[in-house]
Amino acid sequence: MSEQLKNALGYVEKERNSLLSELKEIIAIESVSTDPAYTPEIEKAAEWLKKKLASIGIDNVQILPTGGHPVVYGEYLAAGPDAETMIVYGHYDVQPADPVEKWTTPAFDAQERDGNLYGRGTSDMKGQLMAAVFAIEAMLKYGDLPINIKFMIEGEEENTSPSLFAFLEENKDLLASDFALNSDAGMAEVDLPTITYGMRGLLSCEIHVQGPGKDLHSGLYGGAVRNPIHELARLIGKIHDENGRITLPGFYDKVRDLDDEEREALARLPIDEKNVLAGTGAPEFWGEAGYSFVERVGARPAIDINGIFGGYTGAGTKTVLPAEAHAKLTMRLVPDQDPDEVLEQLKRFLDENIYGSNTWSLDFKDGATACTSGRDSNGVRAMQKAFESVWGMEPVFYRSGGSIPAVGYMQEVLGVESVLTGFSRPDDNVHSPNEKLHLETWYKGIDTFIHFLHNMAGS
Amino acid sequence: MSEQLKNALGYVEKERNSLLSELKEIIAIESVSTDPAYTPEIEKAAEWLKKKLASIGIDNVQILPTGGHPVVYGEYLAAGPDAETMIVYGHYDVQPADPVEKWTTPAFDAQERDGNLYGRGTSDMKGQLMAAVFAIEAMLKYGDLPINIKFMIEGEEENTSPSLFAFLEENKDLLASDFALNSDAGMAEVDLPTITYGMRGLLSCEIHVQGPGKDLHSGLYGGAVRNPIHELARLIGKIHDENGRITLPGFYDKVRDLDDEEREALARLPIDEKNVLAGTGAPEFWGEAGYSFVERVGARPAIDINGIFGGYTGAGTKTVLPAEAHAKLTMRLVPDQDPDEVLEQLKRFLDENIYGSNTWSLDFKDGATACTSGRDSNGVRAMQKAFESVWGMEPVFYRSGGSIPAVGYMQEVLGVESVLTGFSRPDDNVHSPNEKLHLETWYKGIDTFIHFLHNMAGS
Repeated sequence: MSEQLKNALGYVEKERNSLLSELKEIIAIESVSTDPAYTPEIEKAAEWLKKKLASIGIDNVQILPTGGHPVVYGEYLAAGPDAETMIVYGHYDVQPADPVEKWTTPAFDAQERDGNLYGRGTSDMKGQLMAAVFAIEAMLKYGDLPINIKFMIEGEEENTSPSLFAFLEENKDLLASDFALNSDAGMAEVDLPTITYGMRGLLSCEIHVQGPGKDLHSGLYGGAVRNPIHELARLIGKIHDENGRITLPGFYDKVRDLDDEEREALARLPIDEKNVLAGTGAPEFWGEAGYSFVERVGARPAIDINGIFGGYTGAGTKTVLPAEAHAKLTMRLVPDQDPDEVLEQLKRFLDENIYGSNTWSLDFKDGATACTSGRDSNGVRAMQKAFESVWGMEPVFYRSGGSIPAVGYMQEVLGVESVLTGFSRPDDNVHSPNEKLHLETWYKGIDTFIHFLHNMAGS
Repeated sequence: MSEQLKNALGYVEKERNSLLSELKEIIAIESVSTDPAYTPEIEKAAEWLKKKLASIGIDNVQILPTGGHPVVYGEYLAAGPDAETMIVYGHYDVQPADPVEKWTTPAFDAQERDGNLYGRGTSDMKGQLMAAVFAIEAMLKYGDLPINIKFMIEGEEENTSPSLFAFLEENKDLLASDFALNSDAGMAEVDLPTITYGMRGLLSCEIHVQGPGKDLHSGLYGGAVRNPIHELARLIGKIHDENGRITLPGFYDKVRDLDDEEREALARLPIDEKNVLAGTGAPEFWGEAGYSFVERVGARPAIDINGIFGGYTGAGTKTVLPAEAHAKLTMRLVPDQDPDEVLEQLKRFLDENIYGSNTWSLDFKDGATACTSGRDSNGVRAMQKAFESVWGMEPVFYRSGGSIPAVGYMQEVLGVESVLTGFSRPDDNVHSPNEKLHLETWYKGIDTFIHFLHNMAGS
């Protein structure tokens, strides 16, 4: 073991408490990207990261504007023009804390319990981002890095990265690199080292159904005027058929089928579906007939209503026949679905199914295609070896159901593939109340990244 | 014309502005009954009425407790034991002002525009209640009344009167009387004097659908765990069939059919359906096939979702697969449907239709049967004559789609039928933003009640 590697690992071991304190600092910044009310906190998080990167020896640290929330950029180019250049991708924004009342301790006041750190963003992904930052910090303390690094840390991932594509196009030269490290992908199972090679795409929109021109008294008009809540509900009820298949016209036409080889590989993954089910609290799985859990979330598309509202939602009863009803919808897309085409399919579905006396409209938010990465590159090999050193086992290759628009965008604009991994666990309650980070897993994660950086020297 | 009648009418004419100022005072009290946050305002409204009734010569004015919001009671018994005794029923509570942002001027700061007074409760029913109070005030200024009066003004009508039945049973002797005057029923058309002889019953409840045990990441689980918003929506979508009929098992078994005579009478009502439709802002009517608008709202049952919510409803996107979804549901019932039986039908419908991996639960709030009143009594005749005197035309007899639980309860507990009328108009936006009261109609309403009181002398 090289001196630098040994010292870097020793540094993390010795400084566990101070690294944890720093993580708590950035967790405390309420950088919710989807709600404009939190914009000052977004700016605070970017400033915090700028300061941190500069303090560990990263050069040219800047907060770069985008059409939305800014990107934190910084570079380490001391490895020279002959070495590979890696983008460290991350996001400093988080999901809203809602429903706030379901948190045991406050979402933005990270607290330790039973070996976990509870708080919004602990797992997704401030903890994962800081694992990479701390690994680089530790290595730089005892020597140089064998590769060049460019940080690109965005603030809109939890809001489907609406500004990132244009940002990449505008900063193509600045960001030129060989591959990306993305620790936002997580582990397929508790304690299962995982390299993710596929992620689903994302389409998000809001559907509005308009009924009467104004709210009406449900006694005086009920049964004689079509209630838009009923119509929106009926439409949502028709999105899936009795086999769990999506009924949008042409929806499956471009869905790339799993071949036998991949189905067998996915079936061999050491994922205990009973365990996964227990973690959800649902009595049974549900979905497209003929596919396993791993296939459904990794390789098949899905539509979810993430929020619905209409009429009176306060305490008690209000006998109103409302004018409008609304649903927030996201789709998870797989190769080779095209977000633009799928959006047209949704519009056609609404046109063909809506009842005559109600009308629909749709606010399209964003779309990103699904993507898969090669499993054979210097970066992937260095990560495989790092997992073997720290965890004593080879990582599995997994297709995740989640979406990181940046992965596809970087591939398209920069021609850069991502090494997708991370140390979040399926029981971390990401996007949910009581999000947490398992601390032993996290410390091992920092060690894994240290080994990975070290391994890149031999590549 | 008697001196008392002439003077009372003259008083209203002369005091228009001061009566309007007093009405604005009670409108300004935010007596929303459904939301506990407004309880202090409820108490304020009851106190205001107590003071007002005492000031016009009503005796024994009291604020009587109930299981919920109090009843304002007061009596005038000077007509003696041989005269008829009339309950003046009313409610001082109002619907919530939501959606607040759709009001042109603040809901609780009543303002005049184009001959209307805009504000929550102007039409439903603080304006209607005060029309009766002011008529009694005017008559008492110039003499005695030919009948005894007992005021019973409740504070929970807009919340389905959950405490009233028990209150009536406990105060049966105090409230003993011959008939009730209820000005909460309104006009079937603009400028159409109306006596209502039927109202629909009401059942209200909240339906909850539970999916997974906690909110999940919709990327990591979407397409593999049943989303309770989709399931709640599918259930709501199944409540009506393609002919607008309700699919609850046995729902129509006890619905009393309209006979030919009544259908003909309802068809002859001078109600312009085109005009009614224009007032709703809906492009067309919808409902149970084979029935007219007047029949659908007056004599056929209805189910409306008054509010729906689940998942993330804030700004932007949150990619969550929520644990729960909720709907507020009310039904309008007709003779001879029984609320308890219909509740069981709803539960059976949910049991038979819900998808296995989601579960439902239901909070029952209240139920009241539909009711019809006789069209031949002293009270009805005195009201008919009053309309003829003030409006120059006979009133129509109408079945309203609304519900006033008190009407059925008073019939059942006190053996008292109601003379149902009022001066609210179909374009008054009751239960909606920009609720209003047409002032000329209201002043004529006060005059009508003065004539009515006068006519009771000859009965």
